[in-house]
Amino acid sequence: MSLFLEVVSVSEAVEAIRRIAPPPRYEEVPLEDALHRVLARDVAADIDIPGFDRSTVDGYAVAAAETTGASEAIPAMLRCQGRIGMGSADAGTVSPGSCRYVPTGGALPRGTDAAVMIEHAEQIGDDVLVHRPVAPGENVVFRGEDFAAGKTALTRGRVLSPRDIGVAAAVGADRVSVAKRPRIGIISTGNELVAVADTPGPGEVRDANSYLAGAFVTERGCHPVYFGIVRDERSMLKKAVASALEQCDAVLVSGGSSKDERDNTAAVITELGEVLVHGIALAPGKPTIIGTAGGKPVIGLPGHPASAYVVLVAVVDYLLAAMHDTTVSRRTIRARLVQNISSTRGREDYVRVSLKNGEATPVFGKSGLLNTLVQSEGLVRIPASSEGLEVGEEVEVILW
Amino acid sequence: MSLFLEVVSVSEAVEAIRRIAPPPRYEEVPLEDALHRVLARDVAADIDIPGFDRSTVDGYAVAAAETTGASEAIPAMLRCQGRIGMGSADAGTVSPGSCRYVPTGGALPRGTDAAVMIEHAEQIGDDVLVHRPVAPGENVVFRGEDFAAGKTALTRGRVLSPRDIGVAAAVGADRVSVAKRPRIGIISTGNELVAVADTPGPGEVRDANSYLAGAFVTERGCHPVYFGIVRDERSMLKKAVASALEQCDAVLVSGGSSKDERDNTAAVITELGEVLVHGIALAPGKPTIIGTAGGKPVIGLPGHPASAYVVLVAVVDYLLAAMHDTTVSRRTIRARLVQNISSTRGREDYVRVSLKNGEATPVFGKSGLLNTLVQSEGLVRIPASSEGLEVGEEVEVILW
Repeated sequence: MSLFLEVVSVSEAVEAIRRIAPPPRYEEVPLEDALHRVLARDVAADIDIPGFDRSTVDGYAVAAAETTGASEAIPAMLRCQGRIGMGSADAGTVSPGSCRYVPTGGALPRGTDAAVMIEHAEQIGDDVLVHRPVAPGENVVFRGEDFAAGKTALTRGRVLSPRDIGVAAAVGADRVSVAKRPRIGIISTGNELVAVADTPGPGEVRDANSYLAGAFVTERGCHPVYFGIVRDERSMLKKAVASALEQCDAVLVSGGSSKDERDNTAAVITELGEVLVHGIALAPGKPTIIGTAGGKPVIGLPGHPASAYVVLVAVVDYLLAAMHDTTVSRRTIRARLVQNISSTRGREDYVRVSLKNGEATPVFGKSGLLNTLVQSEGLVRIPASSEGLEVGEEVEVILW
Repeated sequence: MSLFLEVVSVSEAVEAIRRIAPPPRYEEVPLEDALHRVLARDVAADIDIPGFDRSTVDGYAVAAAETTGASEAIPAMLRCQGRIGMGSADAGTVSPGSCRYVPTGGALPRGTDAAVMIEHAEQIGDDVLVHRPVAPGENVVFRGEDFAAGKTALTRGRVLSPRDIGVAAAVGADRVSVAKRPRIGIISTGNELVAVADTPGPGEVRDANSYLAGAFVTERGCHPVYFGIVRDERSMLKKAVASALEQCDAVLVSGGSSKDERDNTAAVITELGEVLVHGIALAPGKPTIIGTAGGKPVIGLPGHPASAYVVLVAVVDYLLAAMHDTTVSRRTIRARLVQNISSTRGREDYVRVSLKNGEATPVFGKSGLLNTLVQSEGLVRIPASSEGLEVGEEVEVILW
């Protein structure tokens, strides 16, 4: 057995990991619990929204044609035929030469097709002086103009934002069908690991990866299930992975993913199923494993948290999105590089950068330092085909 | 009483709303529940992190000086003194002219100060040929280099990201002190409103704002408490607001925020406390109220969801951030405007835009349409001092 990994490209790894994503299951949830969930079925308007011609201002409902040419100097004069009550079932009819006061959201009476803002009119007794003309439809939303009955308001696969939730409410979706939160088993392996509440002795470190991976999958709408720290013994790791597979939809194992003799993850996956990828042309993050067992993905992450996090962002994110039947939605911004970054051709490099005033500065210090995770705002990806990026270049920063 | 609002600028409104924010209360939570919470106290490293000199690669622990000048042609030859076990309490000592195999994360033995990657060395029997020189500290993180004991790893006010959670774990913070989730009372008022599960009759619309505001405050780490729909009757609204004030830290009332005779929010706040701002030079969103009652903020939002949402983003966001003792963190991107946008001087305009390939297109259609909320990806702010923005200009888009 070679000591070296046979690496695949990042795009091959992403393709492999998407292919093994188990299809999502669905559930109905009350709309108020649906924030950030992934919509499983289109949401359509049940009726015309709005259900009637509606003013968007406080003012006077008018026939627009009767305001043509109105000005401060020569206002149009209309007779005010009272006031429209909010929510009243019938806004009535306005006769030619007349208007009616309408509050924001009120229904337009028959005979009118626009609303004059109260700021642009003056009421004197029963007369209303209109100082500015309005066009037909001005300050009005017509029946069905927002969403016609049956029209799709929100498409499946959408991660529901607060605005989406508001729109779903408007079109009557008090319950929505969403992808169930996948359960992701999380295991850390390594003889050097101690629990976070413990004080590491010489040669020991705390298990940061369980928390890091747990928070990452939570942020992406999954439910983390923690299986704790497992020592570098194949039988123990196998037992832990098998147990996680029983309870979860996918399993992340951090540590033991390289080819050192203490590394058991690949062997355990092979015993339980199949290793598809062992090694990705990615820095940091090369010792990564993509496998399946019992139809469920089992992913081996590098033991170092900074490397593990790059793999979560660059590769695992695509698995979690596919498990929700949605796409990875990344926030990226463009920034100017303030210093050269060299890179190795044939390998996709992810360089941590801090951002300020549109400038991206590579974070100094060794990539193995955890503190780079909190001192950087994002990652600059250097494609495998490139030998580096030059100062002054505009780069895309993945905000992480 | 004037029919018109006496508006203040957006920055004055933001200043007013921040001033009335009740100070946060704090609670301790387990680290695994701390994602996206606002850190209330700095988190410092309890001990040196790492607690020992640590290799970041699989390879050989060496004295860097002994690899000087090493090359493929003339490798440095070192004697291998065995292997370092992970987590072992003592990595021992390496004598001059020797090295020891060290796995990623393993402790460096005394007498070494760097690690040679396994890819750059060749072991033949007990001899190791090193093909590339390493500098002191290369592929090693020294004791305390990541975080020295007592050094702040995460500063208060930070909204905890997955990376922060990982770092907190590494430095031993298995519980963290965070701002308690403020309880935000949510009331919708209007005779035209029906519940989302109901079918609106003529002149009626569904209450989208309760859901919209509830999801918005949830996304910002608050706990929404829903008080439902209240008719446009002052005594009923007063009762609802008083009840919400008893149970919550702040109250949002949507609807009834203008100066129409059916608008009761300002009058109710005046009866219970004080109105500080009534009207903001903001479009959409002018009819907004900032008030207090019993030391708690009571905010009146416009009844139209699209307007209400702009006020949530442009103004209320600052209240919620202040209630967490943090700052508003907005995701923005720069984009090129593909058409002119005109604006009124003296008023801050927020124009919904869709984004594609770095270009921002104002969303067509009336601003009163709900569908603009889902068809846009963000807002372009046009300052009060400007009469508009020109095609080709680079603008900052607030991603919402």
